[in-house]
Amino acid sequence: MEKEKMIYEGKAKKVYSTNDADKVIVEYKDDATAFDGEKKGQITEKGRLNAKISTILFELLEDNGIPTHLIEKINETDVLVKKLDIILVEVVMRNVAAGSLAKRLGLEEGTRLNKPVLEFYYKDDDLGDPMINRYHVYAEELATKKQLDQISKLAFKINDILVEFLADKGIDLIDFKLEFGTDNKGKIYLGDEISPDTCRFWDTKTQKKLDKDRFRRDLGEVEGAYHEIVRRLEK
Amino acid sequence: MEKEKMIYEGKAKKVYSTNDADKVIVEYKDDATAFDGEKKGQITEKGRLNAKISTILFELLEDNGIPTHLIEKINETDVLVKKLDIILVEVVMRNVAAGSLAKRLGLEEGTRLNKPVLEFYYKDDDLGDPMINRYHVYAEELATKKQLDQISKLAFKINDILVEFLADKGIDLIDFKLEFGTDNKGKIYLGDEISPDTCRFWDTKTQKKLDKDRFRRDLGEVEGAYHEIVRRLEK
Repeated sequence: MEKEKMIYEGKAKKVYSTNDADKVIVEYKDDATAFDGEKKGQITEKGRLNAKISTILFELLEDNGIPTHLIEKINETDVLVKKLDIILVEVVMRNVAAGSLAKRLGLEEGTRLNKPVLEFYYKDDDLGDPMINRYHVYAEELATKKQLDQISKLAFKINDILVEFLADKGIDLIDFKLEFGTDNKGKIYLGDEISPDTCRFWDTKTQKKLDKDRFRRDLGEVEGAYHEIVRRLEK
Repeated sequence: MEKEKMIYEGKAKKVYSTNDADKVIVEYKDDATAFDGEKKGQITEKGRLNAKISTILFELLEDNGIPTHLIEKINETDVLVKKLDIILVEVVMRNVAAGSLAKRLGLEEGTRLNKPVLEFYYKDDDLGDPMINRYHVYAEELATKKQLDQISKLAFKINDILVEFLADKGIDLIDFKLEFGTDNKGKIYLGDEISPDTCRFWDTKTQKKLDKDRFRRDLGEVEGAYHEIVRRLEK
């Protein structure tokens, strides 16, 4: 299947139409941004590495019964996926306090949460993707109660699958962001990507960060971290 | 019943022990603060006016089946209440977008929400009372699921009672904050106060603000607003 027209360009991906109205091609870019786009840069080969990482993890989830948009990886940076209407509620799952949660609750980064924490964020760049709750979702009609219940249940299940899989690779899954969408029949699928751009991955033994925090916080060895994740997932 | 020892001084109230270990006396102060205590001032007679307003509204809620800490008003500024262990989750109910919600969702202040919005906040001055959700509450063990379900249900019921009562007085209930606590048997009661310090009250016809926003935003006629609320509630 071939790219036809670029229909959307995001911070880390481009989306192209195809000759099938229900399918689009996602092209992963090397561009990296942080802090609502205030910090901009490039991470060499990120597009190729994230396309690989995300495909491996989406295949894992499909194999474990999670409906995802993945159809097939086409080449090094391009992935064919189901076209979804994205639900404007981002889901963040957290196993260990880091980033905004550590700040919000006054916890030291690295504090293991006694239960996984699910958060909803309003996918709106102009508002800075604020944290919201169910009632905000209903008031703004971003999703129905049934949809929220379904994506919450999927998010906890995805967390269980990923935590177990990654632990086996020596990776602690600290937290991650998910996006869901509906097909033209209203069925919910996992969309977007799962990669070091959207997750916090820490080395189990050393707690070294192997994710975009290396870029956000200028920790160095940014490309190396992405390569390391690919290496471990392919093991 | 007499005040014995001051056991707590908050921003707007003092709490005294009595000779009954299960009862305390709350003294309403004229002190006013805003923006996490950054702005400080006094509102003449606020203590007396809020003691009156809160007692009227707590009696209304009791009459409508809401368990509250109110026992009786003792004098102009002092109210005898059940001693509660306060649950560190503040509940905010909103009918119309204002303040932080208007900002969070990018809504014009005054936009009526198509459904009431309930929010939880972590009662922690050092953290600036951050907004949290159920999963944060569980992770921090601030309350149980059963308690959260119960206080949510009470909050929606309280909203219905207050909206109807205040509408009859020409007051739009925009939003308000509630605190709940447990007695020594674990039973949940509504605690704290309901007053222009903790609610947004707008005149139904003119939409004039009759609450602490007049102090927060330097709108003038601050005392007048508190007096006006008393006048209407006593009508």
